[in-house]
Amino acid sequence: MWQLYQFPLCPFSRKVRLLLSEKGVAYDLVRENPWERREGFGHLSPAYRTPAIHNPERGITLADSRAICEYFEETVDKTPMINGTAANRAEIRRLVALFDESFFADVTSPLLEERMKKRLVYRSPPDSKLLREAMRLADEHLYYIDYLIDNRPWLAGSTMSLADLAAAAQISVADYLGGIDWSGHEQARGWYSVFKSRPSFRPLLGERMDVIQPPSHYADVNA
Amino acid sequence: MWQLYQFPLCPFSRKVRLLLSEKGVAYDLVRENPWERREGFGHLSPAYRTPAIHNPERGITLADSRAICEYFEETVDKTPMINGTAANRAEIRRLVALFDESFFADVTSPLLEERMKKRLVYRSPPDSKLLREAMRLADEHLYYIDYLIDNRPWLAGSTMSLADLAAAAQISVADYLGGIDWSGHEQARGWYSVFKSRPSFRPLLGERMDVIQPPSHYADVNA
Repeated sequence: MWQLYQFPLCPFSRKVRLLLSEKGVAYDLVRENPWERREGFGHLSPAYRTPAIHNPERGITLADSRAICEYFEETVDKTPMINGTAANRAEIRRLVALFDESFFADVTSPLLEERMKKRLVYRSPPDSKLLREAMRLADEHLYYIDYLIDNRPWLAGSTMSLADLAAAAQISVADYLGGIDWSGHEQARGWYSVFKSRPSFRPLLGERMDVIQPPSHYADVNA
Repeated sequence: MWQLYQFPLCPFSRKVRLLLSEKGVAYDLVRENPWERREGFGHLSPAYRTPAIHNPERGITLADSRAICEYFEETVDKTPMINGTAANRAEIRRLVALFDESFFADVTSPLLEERMKKRLVYRSPPDSKLLREAMRLADEHLYYIDYLIDNRPWLAGSTMSLADLAAAAQISVADYLGGIDWSGHEQARGWYSVFKSRPSFRPLLGERMDVIQPPSHYADVNA
């Protein structure tokens, strides 16, 4: 059995969990707080980043969320998530990078720092200026999703792909931490609400991160 | 003909250039300063990040350096750079992510900010504390390369791969900006000096970024 090292609000772990569920790969969750830099975790993920995934029976350890997703895409045929022509696949990977890197740096990372780590680790109040800037940038990213959904049924084209999973993973963490204002983003909201009702997404939306509670609309598929 | 939008010290553009040269794909260079956020460039790369690559004859535009590398890996058979079993390929991609993300954030990005952007764009002096911290972290990354090369001929295994190109691209920019102290890193230095003499690498090492000059050892294959 695969063991996924993660914490509930890690957006990269969420992306991998969505992919594994869509592909029907069974896994156990192992809670890991990467900021504690536990030595045993460094053997699985030398950069001390979640997720890492380990299969003791097969003696395989994989780290880095994109490397993990490409591995399961190559080894599990069910529900292709990086599909189509080479140009289609490049478009999927461009959007995955946009959400993993730009959305994360602009929105998810400052929200995790200010609303999760400062509460759980540093015991200090959040910086409201940084939070406002993260929410302003979240709004810009939602406009881009609106634009994509105006032109395509899914973010990268005509079928659901890893781009949708990467975007939903980042947005769900930002939404949990109160960083998303959906008003004025009907296309993005419609795309995301379809996602929220998928069987792969329901277990994630039911989890809670220690003492931090999400807003009431967070797990509501009709919101 | 492919047109690569880049600037000389962009480490992600360097990675793509090394891959294209190793694969024998011809391309023209187009100078782009992504921090100027030129509107026309936003049409090629919506995140305003270099590199982007465009082929007017085929009507193909690709953005994000990893998406570009995967595209040419899929479409050009010559000199496979993400090769081997699915687990080998995951190891290559893990290391690419380590250099693209961790090395870049720890070392290349602060060096570019302090020694390039502050000089060319903001006209302000560099912060010596940030530079010292970037050089300290560079030293840690070089120890990890020493460890890998103690165990393998190339970073990800028995053959040269995209992991080597990603690492050499980041290190070459850091070295240009005076951020690398090679003393005590004989394994890393040996691996890198082999790289410096490759035909794919020579043109990069001959280029200069405006008024910023590299240290004397930078392009010397015997240093």
